[in-house]
Amino acid sequence: MIYNCLIINALLSTGGYVIAVRLIPGFRQKFIDKNRVGKDLCKKNKKEIPESMGVLIGLVFLVVLFLFIPVPFTLGEATKTGSKAATFPHEKFVELLVALLSIAVMMLLGFIDDIFDLRWRYKLVLPSIAMIPLLMVYAVYYNLTTIIMPKFLRTFVGYSLDIGALYYIYMGMLAVFCTNAINILAGINGLEVGQSLIISTSILLFNFIELSLGHQVDAHKFSIYLMLPFLAVSLALWKFNKYPSQVFVGDTFCYFAGMTFAVVGILGHFSKTLILFFLPQIINFLYSIPQLFKFIPCPRHRLPKYDSKSDLLHISTTDFDKNELNMLSRLMVTVLKSLKLITWQETPDGKVKTNNFTLINFVLLVFGPVHEKILTQMLMGFQILCTVLALIIRYPLANYFYDT
Amino acid sequence: MIYNCLIINALLSTGGYVIAVRLIPGFRQKFIDKNRVGKDLCKKNKKEIPESMGVLIGLVFLVVLFLFIPVPFTLGEATKTGSKAATFPHEKFVELLVALLSIAVMMLLGFIDDIFDLRWRYKLVLPSIAMIPLLMVYAVYYNLTTIIMPKFLRTFVGYSLDIGALYYIYMGMLAVFCTNAINILAGINGLEVGQSLIISTSILLFNFIELSLGHQVDAHKFSIYLMLPFLAVSLALWKFNKYPSQVFVGDTFCYFAGMTFAVVGILGHFSKTLILFFLPQIINFLYSIPQLFKFIPCPRHRLPKYDSKSDLLHISTTDFDKNELNMLSRLMVTVLKSLKLITWQETPDGKVKTNNFTLINFVLLVFGPVHEKILTQMLMGFQILCTVLALIIRYPLANYFYDT
Repeated sequence: MIYNCLIINALLSTGGYVIAVRLIPGFRQKFIDKNRVGKDLCKKNKKEIPESMGVLIGLVFLVVLFLFIPVPFTLGEATKTGSKAATFPHEKFVELLVALLSIAVMMLLGFIDDIFDLRWRYKLVLPSIAMIPLLMVYAVYYNLTTIIMPKFLRTFVGYSLDIGALYYIYMGMLAVFCTNAINILAGINGLEVGQSLIISTSILLFNFIELSLGHQVDAHKFSIYLMLPFLAVSLALWKFNKYPSQVFVGDTFCYFAGMTFAVVGILGHFSKTLILFFLPQIINFLYSIPQLFKFIPCPRHRLPKYDSKSDLLHISTTDFDKNELNMLSRLMVTVLKSLKLITWQETPDGKVKTNNFTLINFVLLVFGPVHEKILTQMLMGFQILCTVLALIIRYPLANYFYDT
Repeated sequence: MIYNCLIINALLSTGGYVIAVRLIPGFRQKFIDKNRVGKDLCKKNKKEIPESMGVLIGLVFLVVLFLFIPVPFTLGEATKTGSKAATFPHEKFVELLVALLSIAVMMLLGFIDDIFDLRWRYKLVLPSIAMIPLLMVYAVYYNLTTIIMPKFLRTFVGYSLDIGALYYIYMGMLAVFCTNAINILAGINGLEVGQSLIISTSILLFNFIELSLGHQVDAHKFSIYLMLPFLAVSLALWKFNKYPSQVFVGDTFCYFAGMTFAVVGILGHFSKTLILFFLPQIINFLYSIPQLFKFIPCPRHRLPKYDSKSDLLHISTTDFDKNELNMLSRLMVTVLKSLKLITWQETPDGKVKTNNFTLINFVLLVFGPVHEKILTQMLMGFQILCTVLALIIRYPLANYFYDT
């Protein structure tokens, strides 16, 4: 029964891959005609590439799952009677629908963002809007807001703690985090899709491990139902987005991917493990804080600098006057400099040149100039390393904090 | 209890109206900056007007309903227990979610159509895609495909007939019909929103009549829950789209409106009555058939012709050679001419000039050139007349065909 549904899901996902692979080249010209294009900045010719292709594969993902809706609920279920048996898993059915609703709304908002190029503050609001249905359904169906405490905290606060409304804020923040985390670790060919491929594979690996251990079978099956089609359509996109990119993915893809991860994390009850799979994104975010929150001047683009002679990428830098920095900024700089996490060149009259604080630039800082293709591979390799680390934390180490 | 939910819905809808009225002017410049504009062809200056504003009010509609999700299911329901009571109306809950899912997907597809200007064949496919979730849920939850026969047919086929898969095709076609019916009765300031306002008011009127008669209370409440927010956000759009238009609504709005009507018609179990409210659209479609299916040459635009001297709209015409017509075309023309439904000017050498076959042109044919604002009002007046006719058919006459 479990495996029947998974096999059908896998077949539908394969169909989704095949269709997506055919649709993308077919729609490339359409995107170019309508000026949905972006410049590929790290290339000699700076060619214009079709943008926002994420919306196309997002639609394929939705259709695959629309067709899958009846599968887990009719195989082995008596439905000919016209009314549902008492055993019908209403909650599971509702979870699937609301997951698709939140993801579809996120895609719509992402595509709107791509078209209208909304300001940063909207990027924080939009995922929260797309999360409302999920939070509402959670409130109606479960309204469970109790979290289990790690062992070392239990003597202080007890075995569990009802955090009430904070739990809803946590879920909303998770969506904001997942969507934007992918959106800011981006800018070189293939990176957005590449990291999403690895995160989704990591989630699938975790789901299958848990299934084999017999833990929370329903929750992990649910996650697999969404992750397999996601992996399939993302692979199709990867085929055209990897170096040298023939298409760009757009904010639509980053939102779609992040929201899908957030939804399976929440409804699959493994949001803490999910966050572990976002380690490179968290590092990138923490490293970016001084620039994102304007402690250090932040240029419009923080992409690496392309050197057309060597065809290699170099760190990109930002220039400013040291007097622009306030006390807190100077403290940050001192810490980052002493940890050798940034470059810092200062002239006697106070002109400063430092690298832009992104994980991409940091990799270039450590390894020196590399080719764009290799840079994406290095960052994907780091993402894989972090998954291994996450699974080590999740399995052997979790015993120290929780009873598993 | 019923009225509590309706009052909350009305309050949320009012909030939606207020927000939409503020958002639309705020986003006008954003749309212009990103070249999301269309020319207003029936004006002296042919000004460029922000296009696709339907997506903005569609989002407000979704957010209003997202916030409304818990209302009908927590007022009077015990939810603190963590698991649902046996009496929880799972089916109603699922209906609301899947309705929103289909509508949200239709909006996304409509916005994509606006951006990429898809071909006609897609316009028939997209609503079918958006209907899949609803059809799937229908299959899982009800799978009732039996229709009650009109009295005069019962001696031949019995009281009811199970039409099986045909019922699903009917539901899919209803979505294709409703979305495209609004999309083709369009082109002059305010008409798309104007007709939608009257259709939604007609549906609400019908719902309240049925509620007061105690018929299918749940189904009609459900319809009201969707129609009130729809009416609210459409009124906000009307404020800016009525003559002289400050914004255009885009295919997004036509799809959004049509899909919302189709969804409430299907899930509210009044799809036949719904079709009656589309009488002007049906007439427009039937009248358009010779051009839509290329029996008569069809120009790219069939809008009325604007006369800048008098500021009035005249019928638009199409010119062709009589030899281009095949047998069937000639038959159609003969019928239409003898019924005086078209103008027809023919030179001795076979050059023909006839009006474009749209309801808008037909009104101009009957009443002569009129001002754009008046033309929209005339068409809206006709829509109101048709609603009166529809209610007469639905109530007194239906007794002849069905037991009510």
